[in-house]
Amino acid sequence: MRMIPSASPGLPRRAVAELVGTAALVAVVVGSGIQAAALSQDVGVRLLANSLASALGLGLLIALLGPLSGGHLNPVVTLSEWWARRDEEGAPRAGEVAAYLAAQLVGAVAGALLAEAMFGRAPGAWSTQVRSGTHLLIGETVATAGLVLLVQGLRRIDRSALAPVAVGGYLMAAIWFTSSGSFANPAGTVGRAFSDSFTGIAPASLPGFIGAQLLGLLLGVALASVLYGGRESGRRSGRNEPNGPDSRRKG
Amino acid sequence: MRMIPSASPGLPRRAVAELVGTAALVAVVVGSGIQAAALSQDVGVRLLANSLASALGLGLLIALLGPLSGGHLNPVVTLSEWWARRDEEGAPRAGEVAAYLAAQLVGAVAGALLAEAMFGRAPGAWSTQVRSGTHLLIGETVATAGLVLLVQGLRRIDRSALAPVAVGGYLMAAIWFTSSGSFANPAGTVGRAFSDSFTGIAPASLPGFIGAQLLGLLLGVALASVLYGGRESGRRSGRNEPNGPDSRRKG
Amino acid sequence: MRMIPSASPGLPRRAVAELVGTAALVAVVVGSGIQAAALSQDVGVRLLANSLASALGLGLLIALLGPLSGGHLNPVVTLSEWWARRDEEGAPRAGEVAAYLAAQLVGAVAGALLAEAMFGRAPGAWSTQVRSGTHLLIGETVATAGLVLLVQGLRRIDRSALAPVAVGGYLMAAIWFTSSGSFANPAGTVGRAFSDSFTGIAPASLPGFIGAQLLGLLLGVALASVLYGGRESGRRSGRNEPNGPDSRRKG
Amino acid sequence: MRMIPSASPGLPRRAVAELVGTAALVAVVVGSGIQAAALSQDVGVRLLANSLASALGLGLLIALLGPLSGGHLNPVVTLSEWWARRDEEGAPRAGEVAAYLAAQLVGAVAGALLAEAMFGRAPGAWSTQVRSGTHLLIGETVATAGLVLLVQGLRRIDRSALAPVAVGGYLMAAIWFTSSGSFANPAGTVGRAFSDSFTGIAPASLPGFIGAQLLGLLLGVALASVLYGGRESGRRSGRNEPNGPDSRRKG
Repeated sequence: MRMIPSASPGLPRRAVAELVGTAALVAVVVGSGIQAAALSQDVGVRLLANSLASALGLGLLIALLGPLSGGHLNPVVTLSEWWARRDEEGAPRAGEVAAYLAAQLVGAVAGALLAEAMFGRAPGAWSTQVRSGTHLLIGETVATAGLVLLVQGLRRIDRSALAPVAVGGYLMAAIWFTSSGSFANPAGTVGRAFSDSFTGIAPASLPGFIGAQLLGLLLGVALASVLYGGRESGRRSGRNEPNGPDSRRKG
Repeated sequence: MRMIPSASPGLPRRAVAELVGTAALVAVVVGSGIQAAALSQDVGVRLLANSLASALGLGLLIALLGPLSGGHLNPVVTLSEWWARRDEEGAPRAGEVAAYLAAQLVGAVAGALLAEAMFGRAPGAWSTQVRSGTHLLIGETVATAGLVLLVQGLRRIDRSALAPVAVGGYLMAAIWFTSSGSFANPAGTVGRAFSDSFTGIAPASLPGFIGAQLLGLLLGVALASVLYGGRESGRRSGRNEPNGPDSRRKG
Repeated sequence: MRMIPSASPGLPRRAVAELVGTAALVAVVVGSGIQAAALSQDVGVRLLANSLASALGLGLLIALLGPLSGGHLNPVVTLSEWWARRDEEGAPRAGEVAAYLAAQLVGAVAGALLAEAMFGRAPGAWSTQVRSGTHLLIGETVATAGLVLLVQGLRRIDRSALAPVAVGGYLMAAIWFTSSGSFANPAGTVGRAFSDSFTGIAPASLPGFIGAQLLGLLLGVALASVLYGGRESGRRSGRNEPNGPDSRRKG
Repeated sequence: MRMIPSASPGLPRRAVAELVGTAALVAVVVGSGIQAAALSQDVGVRLLANSLASALGLGLLIALLGPLSGGHLNPVVTLSEWWARRDEEGAPRAGEVAAYLAAQLVGAVAGALLAEAMFGRAPGAWSTQVRSGTHLLIGETVATAGLVLLVQGLRRIDRSALAPVAVGGYLMAAIWFTSSGSFANPAGTVGRAFSDSFTGIAPASLPGFIGAQLLGLLLGVALASVLYGGRESGRRSGRNEPNGPDSRRKG
């Protein structure tokens, strides 16, 4: 709380933070998946290890990068933040949103390739793991809606400082309670198409998953509005953190 | 601490929060159980994953919904809160208690059906998992008494802000150390009768389990009274948080 | 910090807290061990579940009972606290120490019997699990010394409020990194002789283990003195928390 | 925050703290590896237990020893701290750095021998586990760079008080997401050559791993500089904690 820098970093440095952070996130998810698949014959044990490592990695990255860029690392989070803060002073501009999304996408692909290199695999193979079926898309929609509700709910109760622990913990739970593996991140989903491994997703399955994620984004925003009240109180809440350019920042 | 809203949400919004929250809780418990049973052949691994996901889900829901409705998500908690606060100003009225219980019940069933849908199963099959025997009922009584002691103990030592972590952690431990699976939630128990899966319970076993839970409620309240002192100090403690309508609120 | 009651509970209530708490602790350890052994064929999975549940249970009990009795639940902790505070005003008297030890012992046995009852086993069978050998005793000595160093170290750096998380986390780690299973608690060791199950210990192995624990107590106190300085600074530190009768209290 | 001692301990006591702490860390890593390998046939389960115990042990040691010596327990951390604080008043002198490194090295070997003794093995056997290959060295470089980025990033955002949880959590994640096992600690790597067990490393593999760790150190420092800004703001940040001789201290 006492560490708000005198000025936010400029957009270039924030975009670098989003790029590096999303790369690290995807490297953690993909890398721990490759390791787990190599070490255990029990798919439950594999997913336990993979989900624990992914949750810890995501939480640490939000903690570390939150004060720089907000620690979104996920287009769904960036878009939901843009929507929630659209009436505030200092709300994100369209150009900022576009820079964040581009950085996340590039970072996600780089992270998948780094994971492949760390495990001595030839980078560049597309995933062959088809993930389709209505129930998977329902699962992915629920996973994303829950994430958005969590991030926006924390903002509405002024508890965004808990985001590192809460979002990390949510990912761990959602990987288990949804049928889809809880990608819940369009950039991460694209990145994971670049690794033919435990956590990969075949390119043909991308449109369905990303569509489900965008639907989940809408549902999550709507649910937050139903539970925490509409725009009026939203704006009021925003005014309470006047110089916080992003709710996930810890400052 | 700094986020107490000027006024508590009205009863309808609090009831919606309890409904949505209990639905999410049961979806997490049932969904992660279905996933775990599908992925692992080792029942210990299944229960590890299921208990971890359930504990994280419960903790996050209490954190997120505590400031709205108290984040009970469980008739036993609602009833113990009503009892503990019956002499305070602003104590819950019978109508509020009834609305909470109804919302929790409806939410629990909806959550079980959502989990079934996420995993591509035909919703509506009753569980066939009979859970009976005196020792299971002893286990369920102990599990519920421990939960009530925890919630009321935190209230008495002014540490209700720890409820998300403490109640989540308790669920994880209780699933393992009791013989019954630690349902400890009459609404959740009913909801879980609607899923014929790892975490289900056959309708015929409901009366025994719910009876044990109510007995555990009484034991937990009594134990809290023995350890933390009787009503006198209880009222004193209540006066220390004058405008907190619920001990689990984080405000 | 703001919740120090105007007066500490009297000795009888504190002894009840130690009895109930130690019973709950042993019930968690023994019960989760029985459950884990029944569910998994992999001893590693069994110990993962057993250690996680035990760590969570211990942490929650310290948090809940710390403000009442200090939340020792362990003769080694009571004795190390007595030693560390022997020169302070309000230091524990011999009668208090004796009452704590007796309550812990009775509670531990009761907790083992409760666990047996919860799992439908005939209470009263002695454990047949012989635990002997020099290396196990070295392990148990290390486990206990580490616990004492942790508790006294937290006191010396004024971080006793972290005891619930730290001591729980330590137990989880110590169960794995020592060869003995990290009983590290003479009362709990006696209690676990009353259950012929995963976490039991044959009565013939009690003297060796309890001897090792007392040796570990001495080593832990000595190590804390080496690292954090001798009695002079110890007394100074004590003066900084004038009315805290126990370092584990959270108030 | 309120517990800063009037004066830091002298170098001898700080070196003892680093020696004891590194010994304990290596004993936890090696000991839990031996235990896990003995109990489970599934290598995934072994690594889950080993990584959980190691992460908890490291976090507790940083918490306990941070106020004494900074709780480095790792030459890479000591060197990165020296670099980050080289322009501050009270920056570590070369002699202090050397004493820390020597203490860490001696402690690491002692810890490995203690673990061997606890498990009844004849101490002194060299590890026969060859760890080589370019991709492992990439993994080890990434693991170390991430650790340095984390420690320096926490310093730059004034969140070094989170180091116990963050560094412990990082270790858990990094063990899984990198291919090398995430030694990330030259002293620990040498110590682990002294145990022919699950977590050992053959002496012939030491040069490669330590070289990768030093490369990771450089990359981590560079990455922190890119993300958080160069020396100017670094010095500013240093001035904000005038009497903190080490960023990992919790005071």
